[in-house]
Amino acid sequence: MASRLGELVGALAERLEVALEGDPEMLIEAVAPLDSAGPHHLSFLKSARHRRAAAASAAGALIVPQDADAEALGGKDRPLLRTPEPAVALAFALELLHPAPRYVPGIDARAAVAEGTNIAPSAHVGALAVVGAGSSVGARSAVLPTAVIGAGCILGEGVVVHPHAVLYDGVRLGDGVIVHAGAVVGADGFGYATDRRGQHHKIPQVGSVVVEDGVEIGALSAVDRGAFEATRIGAGTKVDNLVQVGHNVDVGRHCLLCGQAGVAGSSRLGDGVVLAGQAGVVDHVEIGDRTLVGAASAVLGSHPQGGQRLSGYPARNHAEWRREVVSVSQLTALKRRLKAAERALEALSPHQDSSSSASLSDTEDGSK
Amino acid sequence: MASRLGELVGALAERLEVALEGDPEMLIEAVAPLDSAGPHHLSFLKSARHRRAAAASAAGALIVPQDADAEALGGKDRPLLRTPEPAVALAFALELLHPAPRYVPGIDARAAVAEGTNIAPSAHVGALAVVGAGSSVGARSAVLPTAVIGAGCILGEGVVVHPHAVLYDGVRLGDGVIVHAGAVVGADGFGYATDRRGQHHKIPQVGSVVVEDGVEIGALSAVDRGAFEATRIGAGTKVDNLVQVGHNVDVGRHCLLCGQAGVAGSSRLGDGVVLAGQAGVVDHVEIGDRTLVGAASAVLGSHPQGGQRLSGYPARNHAEWRREVVSVSQLTALKRRLKAAERALEALSPHQDSSSSASLSDTEDGSK
Amino acid sequence: MASRLGELVGALAERLEVALEGDPEMLIEAVAPLDSAGPHHLSFLKSARHRRAAAASAAGALIVPQDADAEALGGKDRPLLRTPEPAVALAFALELLHPAPRYVPGIDARAAVAEGTNIAPSAHVGALAVVGAGSSVGARSAVLPTAVIGAGCILGEGVVVHPHAVLYDGVRLGDGVIVHAGAVVGADGFGYATDRRGQHHKIPQVGSVVVEDGVEIGALSAVDRGAFEATRIGAGTKVDNLVQVGHNVDVGRHCLLCGQAGVAGSSRLGDGVVLAGQAGVVDHVEIGDRTLVGAASAVLGSHPQGGQRLSGYPARNHAEWRREVVSVSQLTALKRRLKAAERALEALSPHQDSSSSASLSDTEDGSK
Repeated sequence: MASRLGELVGALAERLEVALEGDPEMLIEAVAPLDSAGPHHLSFLKSARHRRAAAASAAGALIVPQDADAEALGGKDRPLLRTPEPAVALAFALELLHPAPRYVPGIDARAAVAEGTNIAPSAHVGALAVVGAGSSVGARSAVLPTAVIGAGCILGEGVVVHPHAVLYDGVRLGDGVIVHAGAVVGADGFGYATDRRGQHHKIPQVGSVVVEDGVEIGALSAVDRGAFEATRIGAGTKVDNLVQVGHNVDVGRHCLLCGQAGVAGSSRLGDGVVLAGQAGVVDHVEIGDRTLVGAASAVLGSHPQGGQRLSGYPARNHAEWRREVVSVSQLTALKRRLKAAERALEALSPHQDSSSSASLSDTEDGSK
Repeated sequence: MASRLGELVGALAERLEVALEGDPEMLIEAVAPLDSAGPHHLSFLKSARHRRAAAASAAGALIVPQDADAEALGGKDRPLLRTPEPAVALAFALELLHPAPRYVPGIDARAAVAEGTNIAPSAHVGALAVVGAGSSVGARSAVLPTAVIGAGCILGEGVVVHPHAVLYDGVRLGDGVIVHAGAVVGADGFGYATDRRGQHHKIPQVGSVVVEDGVEIGALSAVDRGAFEATRIGAGTKVDNLVQVGHNVDVGRHCLLCGQAGVAGSSRLGDGVVLAGQAGVVDHVEIGDRTLVGAASAVLGSHPQGGQRLSGYPARNHAEWRREVVSVSQLTALKRRLKAAERALEALSPHQDSSSSASLSDTEDGSK
Repeated sequence: MASRLGELVGALAERLEVALEGDPEMLIEAVAPLDSAGPHHLSFLKSARHRRAAAASAAGALIVPQDADAEALGGKDRPLLRTPEPAVALAFALELLHPAPRYVPGIDARAAVAEGTNIAPSAHVGALAVVGAGSSVGARSAVLPTAVIGAGCILGEGVVVHPHAVLYDGVRLGDGVIVHAGAVVGADGFGYATDRRGQHHKIPQVGSVVVEDGVEIGALSAVDRGAFEATRIGAGTKVDNLVQVGHNVDVGRHCLLCGQAGVAGSSRLGDGVVLAGQAGVVDHVEIGDRTLVGAASAVLGSHPQGGQRLSGYPARNHAEWRREVVSVSQLTALKRRLKAAERALEALSPHQDSSSSASLSDTEDGSK
């Protein structure tokens, strides 16, 4: 997946808008990690911790943090691309040197495209893909083989919908949205009216889903349509694989929802919220901007204040949670100390009825 | 997704079998929530809590609870549909005013339908769908584009199988079953025989899956086939997205399995059981009727008594769990109090060897 | 799904390489569990616990553990297949008597196969399947209807890719690999560079996925491609449904990843590791060989030592975790005892300022 030709490191630095130290004429063909990079590879040093690996690396050039010490990286003859944001430079370098595949404009004859669609001439619709009536696909977008676009959907420009992804009717995807294989956007929300006999009657879900510009939705993730209005995924938010987003949920901008995270119906996430892997948020709660929810933690109530780190079950302040985990691990010792104190007390007060106290502690101390 | 014509509110009340107060001639075109409803919309008041929003709403008519105070809802000139079960009336009103799409009877020429199938004339098989040999599809059922029905499957009447859903061979779906996009019913259960060298030998899974009448299976959920007999999903049960149901599981009737919940192999859920989002049930256990398992809780043993609310890890009585969460949050204070008591004891018993007690607490109190 | 003809029990014992006691001429048509087996069925006794059910069973022959007491199993006239590994014998017997369907060699005319592929003459490519440019499919492998194989993939011999499974470009599957319906192998890892304004820039994922021989990947599971090098699933490892394996993860050989388990990016699992259902492993950690992680447990750090059983949140030594669960359940009683001790102390030291102590405990004891 490397590019064929490569790029001179001087031109590369200009395109990345970073400072270059060293020979601008060196040819760079690909990006590679420190340990596998060769003389025509660009590699990267995300932090000073990897200094030794960088010094030992055969990489032809390095992206380094602003304050990196050139001497410690193995000498001056290797071009350095210096930047305060090395990870961002790395992302752009990869984009330049490992360009994503271009999809041939046009509609494959084996696709099932309904009448009354509006597909841009520069867009690609692959073999065995489905596009429903009234849907529009913007310029340079790609509906890859076997992807299914329902009726009345609107796809912006530069969208990629991977194989076996499904958009139900009426879903809107902004510009640059990527939907990975198997993801399902716009399935019915989980809404039922339960009658007196305990039977569940489906509440038809007549809302929609709005996925804003620059969102990426991982493989096999599900974003349900709203009950009445729209479920929203804010611009720039990235959703990993196997994530569940319930109906009426409002996810802010630039959030990260990691693998297997879930947000139940009608909850609202602010901007820049991070849900680590397997984290869950119950329904009808509010999570403030830039809240970080730890892996496998369960948010059981609103945390609107923002900027907090939450962990545990139920998710609470991370530092408190850590203290509690330590405290719980000390409980056996704590119980021992309490028993010792009780015995000392008994010794001090010989007139007390010691049998009842002893039976209490014996009965309830099941861990023996 | 609203209907074209609408319905007079008097006729609507009759069809919903609820009492009408007010002008039966008002035309209702759609259902909408209180804050966005207009004069030709029917809206709803699930509980007295939304009284003010109802009074402020421009909705033309309202579904209200039996005991709703008409005065508090903004005056008498607005038709009220009074019922002890407003959510159920809402579900039915939506069904009437926002009818689901009708699928054109017939088999699309681009579908891959094997020989020897039995597809009702009123059924729909969409473009690029697959129906395997010996399968039957009942009246008014729809196999939507790209859905895959294996060999020897039996689909009842009024079934809808959404795009990219897959039924493996021999799966049975009762009447009115809905299978959402990407769901997989009947994949092999996770069964292996591990030999002395630690290698896992696949145990062929020769059972099946029976999905009873009225079940809805959410997007990207998996229901495995039984090892020998059938995995069963009881009538009227609703399964949300990304739910896992292992082999040989028996799910009762009218259960709710919320998003990302999981039930491991051979476990039995009674009727009316609710698993909240991300809840899990281990293998080979029994959960009694109407048990409610809280979000992200893990049921690690049998709870056959029924009617209980379970929470936590391991899931236990909800009230106990709540008490424990509070107790754990008090542990720092508890440790402080214990230390104070120990010091007071030492002060009272100057003859004791205080060094051992002090070292014990210092060593084990790692939270400092 | 039973075979048509069956097999004589003597021949069967030979093929299973187990000892036979009894009449070798009995005809066996299928395998069935003890309670539903008939006179021409082979059944099995995994442990002595099922002795009574075995005695009562109508099964024509039994697979039994090495030390099974023939008398206790209901008499000597029933052929017994005696083996130290009855579950392994059962797996092989099922394979012989319930053979998996054979897929017809050849490429269905409705498949979308790119130019420049290398598909073995004995391989099967089903209707509406997709095979991308430059991919090869080995002998006796099956790409079932609607499965999608990207460009440049290499499938070994005897591979089965079920409907709606998707391999992205460049994925390698070893011999005998099974990929179940809807699974996605090789989607982009979840890698972004976040700039100073909190915007996430996609780091193109240019690595691949290597799935070694004998691996089975369950329905709707996702294995992401590496950022630079390959994500690896070691030989003989079995992955259940809805499992997430992040980019750069290295899973050892003969592991079991049960339903809804997840492994975050760059973590390494040794050989023979078991993740029970819904268990999670955070990123960049190491799990030693033969570690067993309990259901819904969250591994938040490295546990390289191996052979351990881990449970809880965070996952820790299983016995410790159990002790802590018991201790936490005793906290109410513990608090009561501490308060009693404090009162006794106050009674012993009448000169102390008792009000502050009382207010402390009252304030912090919120569980009342």
